[in-house]
Amino acid sequence: GFATATQSNKVTIGLIPADGIGREVIPAARQVLESLPKSETSPRFEFIHLDAGFEHFQKHGVALPEETLARLRGECQGALFGAVSSPSHKVAGYSSPIVALRKHLDLYANVRPVASVAGSGQKQLDMLIIRENTECLYIKQERIETDANGLKVAWADRKISEYASRRAGLMAFNMALMRDKLRSNIPASERLWQGKPKVTIIHKSNVLSITDGLWRETVRGVKESNPAYAGVDMDEQLVDSMVYRMFREPEAFDVVVAPNLYGDIISDGAAALVGSLGLVPSANVGDNFVVGEPVHGSAPDIAGQQKANPIAAIRSAGLLLEHMGYSGDASRIYQAVDGVLREGQIKTPDLGGKSTTQEVTDAVCKRL
Amino acid sequence: GFATATQSNKVTIGLIPADGIGREVIPAARQVLESLPKSETSPRFEFIHLDAGFEHFQKHGVALPEETLARLRGECQGALFGAVSSPSHKVAGYSSPIVALRKHLDLYANVRPVASVAGSGQKQLDMLIIRENTECLYIKQERIETDANGLKVAWADRKISEYASRRAGLMAFNMALMRDKLRSNIPASERLWQGKPKVTIIHKSNVLSITDGLWRETVRGVKESNPAYAGVDMDEQLVDSMVYRMFREPEAFDVVVAPNLYGDIISDGAAALVGSLGLVPSANVGDNFVVGEPVHGSAPDIAGQQKANPIAAIRSAGLLLEHMGYSGDASRIYQAVDGVLREGQIKTPDLGGKSTTQEVTDAVCKRL
Ligand SMILES: CC(C)[C@H](C(=O)O)[C@@H](O)C(=O)O
Ligand SMILES: CC(C)[C@H](C(=O)O)[C@@H](O)C(=O)O
Repeated sequence: GFATATQSNKVTIGLIPADGIGREVIPAARQVLESLPKSETSPRFEFIHLDAGFEHFQKHGVALPEETLARLRGECQGALFGAVSSPSHKVAGYSSPIVALRKHLDLYANVRPVASVAGSGQKQLDMLIIRENTECLYIKQERIETDANGLKVAWADRKISEYASRRAGLMAFNMALMRDKLRSNIPASERLWQGKPKVTIIHKSNVLSITDGLWRETVRGVKESNPAYAGVDMDEQLVDSMVYRMFREPEAFDVVVAPNLYGDIISDGAAALVGSLGLVPSANVGDNFVVGEPVHGSAPDIAGQQKANPIAAIRSAGLLLEHMGYSGDASRIYQAVDGVLREGQIKTPDLGGKSTTQEVTDAVCKRL
Repeated sequence: GFATATQSNKVTIGLIPADGIGREVIPAARQVLESLPKSETSPRFEFIHLDAGFEHFQKHGVALPEETLARLRGECQGALFGAVSSPSHKVAGYSSPIVALRKHLDLYANVRPVASVAGSGQKQLDMLIIRENTECLYIKQERIETDANGLKVAWADRKISEYASRRAGLMAFNMALMRDKLRSNIPASERLWQGKPKVTIIHKSNVLSITDGLWRETVRGVKESNPAYAGVDMDEQLVDSMVYRMFREPEAFDVVVAPNLYGDIISDGAAALVGSLGLVPSANVGDNFVVGEPVHGSAPDIAGQQKANPIAAIRSAGLLLEHMGYSGDASRIYQAVDGVLREGQIKTPDLGGKSTTQEVTDAVCKRL
């Protein structure tokens, strides 16, 4: 089981910077959590530094140490993960630690909000991507053979289960209702999304009629079998059309639910719409544990230079709090970030500015 | 074997409109081919109408009739395919006819040029996507089981072979050289792509180390084992990053080569950059046969209303000619289309205009 919080509101967070700019943005997120104003109901944080990553693999032969998993399970209520580098050639024995973490902790939904900040000059959108996080091609069942002509033939298994599809679908419909409720608190004129809540199912069942067929029917079934979701609209998009439509009419989407790989691709696409991958957070959510994770990679080209945008990691810390039940503190973080973006003065190079990681972090902390 | 052209330059083209707006854009492409000025070296066309599609399946129980395949093989030098509708629910026995056509005629590369037209207000880019066209998840080997709890679990096989990867890689490097040669004919100041020719390999080998690892190493090997490609630069992008980078810096790409599904997704994304899927053509190319095919779908919502943009299909007819060796006639078509787009007066609703399919087609024909 996972460690549970005590009455004292003590919350232990595992920090896993991993590679590259992960080592800059995770400390930034920590600073923001520590700068939250203290109240009786707010959490008192303790942080544990934990190892993982490709560089760790190169030094110690393991990308996700047993100890990291054990301490997450035994001592932490949640974690923040930085980013991993990908080897530029096949490296025997190496396997992505974030994919392993999702699997070992059964973090079955990857929740990725992509929203523009009013007044920031970004394209207007407010989308929540729910990415199934445990199967599809990410099960990594692969093998290689040699054919009759001595040429290689490689195979990978793609798995889509009713069980995982339903969990992802439930998360999507629940989040659609939750977002609708939150929206009702803001004046109608300021709402980006005006209609009924909506879930858009992504698939490619015109080619993958059995696997994506099961995905699509199962997610549809979540709504059809539950009267609580009667007020949520449902539609669908083929993954290729989705990438097209998202760029043409991003305002047409509310909650989007996708199998693992499509969700990976779509969330990077959505990040381009808000101007930078450095802005987009995610939470890997399970029934008992949450790992916040910026959507960006380890960016070795800019690592160690204070050029990394810390906002994705900071917002991921907000998502972590939100999914741990501290939505008030999460809101504070989101609003502080939005304030900095709206003002538009202090920004890292990915947004066309010259500020450092530290300067952006300090600016967010000042607004908490 | 395939039918070969006679000395009289007679070329027989199979026309397969299939579903929805396919029935409007294929006749438009035919009209353009028939309007090409006749010279001694230009082809004399004969057209054969052939059936396929979801609507044909609904009426006759077969999506790609044997007769269509037999006549393509026996009587045609090339074909134009319109678009297929996707059933909105699983339909027993139905399988996409375009996927089947690619497989049966061994059309192993799907060539998709996406380029802006100077002076048309489009984002500046000039990209050629080479999509492997025969394997990956498109082999459609799927099955479904029931687990111990009575829940369904579905599986699909993803195949990546050295054989198919090499053919796609060769096509990519050859096209890079060809494009470089064509560029040398236009004044440097008018060239969108200024550097050495470049091939960008798309993969996701950080997760799919065996299948995408084989893809990546095989395509890299095409360059490394052939001195003819020494002058072609090579780089790579993870598929998720590619969707992001493509939107941020589309001018950074020359030739892009991708496994089947990634290529499908990326080409729809690229279409959004030039303003409409209604502009993007493709050619399904094999060693003995070519099928031109607009990248867009059957668009049932606008079918039969003269609203469809015929340009993707018209450009696909150009690609068909180009890959059949009639590059002069192909250029005429491309230039006529570019002229219409640059002028910007006559355009269908997808581009913000009010012209009909017929009006756009006539405008192109007038400029041939
Ligand atoms: C690093 C990689 C394995 C990972 C993924 O594909 O899931 C990343 O792209 C992400 O989106 O979190
Ligand atoms: C209709 C569909 C099967 C097809 C594909 O996925 O290849 C289409 O999207 C395309 O790009 O030609």
